[in-house]
Amino acid sequence: MKIDILTLFPEMFSGVLGSSILKKAAEKKAVSYNVVNFREFSDDKHKTVDDYPYGGGAGMVLKPQPIFDAVDYLKNERNANPRVILLCPQGEKYTQKKAEEFAKEDHLIFICGHYEGYDERIREHLVSDEISIGDYVLTGGELGAMVMIDSVVRLLPGVLGNDESPIYDSFSSGLLEHPHYTRPADFRGMKVPEVLLSGNHQKIKEWRENESLYRTKSRRPDLMEKYLLEKNNNIDPLN
Amino acid sequence: MKIDILTLFPEMFSGVLGSSILKKAAEKKAVSYNVVNFREFSDDKHKTVDDYPYGGGAGMVLKPQPIFDAVDYLKNERNANPRVILLCPQGEKYTQKKAEEFAKEDHLIFICGHYEGYDERIREHLVSDEISIGDYVLTGGELGAMVMIDSVVRLLPGVLGNDESPIYDSFSSGLLEHPHYTRPADFRGMKVPEVLLSGNHQKIKEWRENESLYRTKSRRPDLMEKYLLEKNNNIDPLN
Repeated sequence: MKIDILTLFPEMFSGVLGSSILKKAAEKKAVSYNVVNFREFSDDKHKTVDDYPYGGGAGMVLKPQPIFDAVDYLKNERNANPRVILLCPQGEKYTQKKAEEFAKEDHLIFICGHYEGYDERIREHLVSDEISIGDYVLTGGELGAMVMIDSVVRLLPGVLGNDESPIYDSFSSGLLEHPHYTRPADFRGMKVPEVLLSGNHQKIKEWRENESLYRTKSRRPDLMEKYLLEKNNNIDPLN
Repeated sequence: MKIDILTLFPEMFSGVLGSSILKKAAEKKAVSYNVVNFREFSDDKHKTVDDYPYGGGAGMVLKPQPIFDAVDYLKNERNANPRVILLCPQGEKYTQKKAEEFAKEDHLIFICGHYEGYDERIREHLVSDEISIGDYVLTGGELGAMVMIDSVVRLLPGVLGNDESPIYDSFSSGLLEHPHYTRPADFRGMKVPEVLLSGNHQKIKEWRENESLYRTKSRRPDLMEKYLLEKNNNIDPLN
């Protein structure tokens, strides 16, 4: 997979793309990253990327020209038909299902605004997906792009080794994970549940399933409802 | 505000904490960041931080000792009563309201796991808040911590200058933002709506309000419903 990132703050990405799984994935050639400062594509002599909004108002708006030209350049360079993803609060809410969908693509281009609004023509005519990672205000699209890249790249074939396979399968199974415990059995007087020390595998399995259901029901009734619907089974196993 | 971050990947944070608003906020002394590798607090000679799960199963579990000791150390050092935040998929969903709540605190400690599960005693006895930034699987808590830090720090008094004041007030007003346009009025044949060029401020205001309502209704009916309820007004202004 080829990932291009358009940003005015390329230095934000080095720590995240250069560590852990994202680094290993690039070393294994499962992915390559290309961080592009779209200011370089501005065709005016001051290299401006923004301008005042038509109709007045506070704040600045990202001009169409530098972003259109940068995307055109990256598309031509690769001769591919990439997904062009705009990170923005108005976008579709990001989910694990979306991550699985993007993991099937060959080429993703992320557009990260910063402070400013995007000229609407970017949304309407350049972008294939508008994504929001959650209902909170961030300074720019960079963190959203990193979140998406992490969630997508770890799904690419060969990227996760056995050691790194997720202990959490929350969101994949549809339920939240049961609690985990490790040694010592007694830490400062806080004890591990007896059943986990029992060696009775059937009981341990039952305890875990129950805890997983209980946790999901109490913390995320919305996920519980979805889980029950998807099982075609409206009987709540906890009642 | 004092922010401590416990992680096994401290190098992930430099790019994000050292750029843009998060950097400026530290320069203005509105916040100070302290990234701590909690492996340094492990009391065994191999500095291990994880161990096999009781009851069997794949994956590893973060031991209580290094994380408890690191948090104890940071609490004592500062003589404060911090919020201790665990990033995890089972946590409460992060929202702008939560960001506003955390922005009132003096001291936040973030605990970022990586690959592994947390020993349940960390959740039960050490942590004040379990937070999830969204329903997708990430490799570790680091990106979640960065997202939370960005959303909180930008709310601290004096951090945002006038230039950086958010053009998006999505989530603050309860509605998604209307479209923005800037020059040129015609870009590759794509035109700015006439009304924005009219100079008629009343009409521009109406157009923007309408677009904002329309966009919210079509893209985020959940936000629209909440907005109408909060206005104590169940009449849909678009009908």
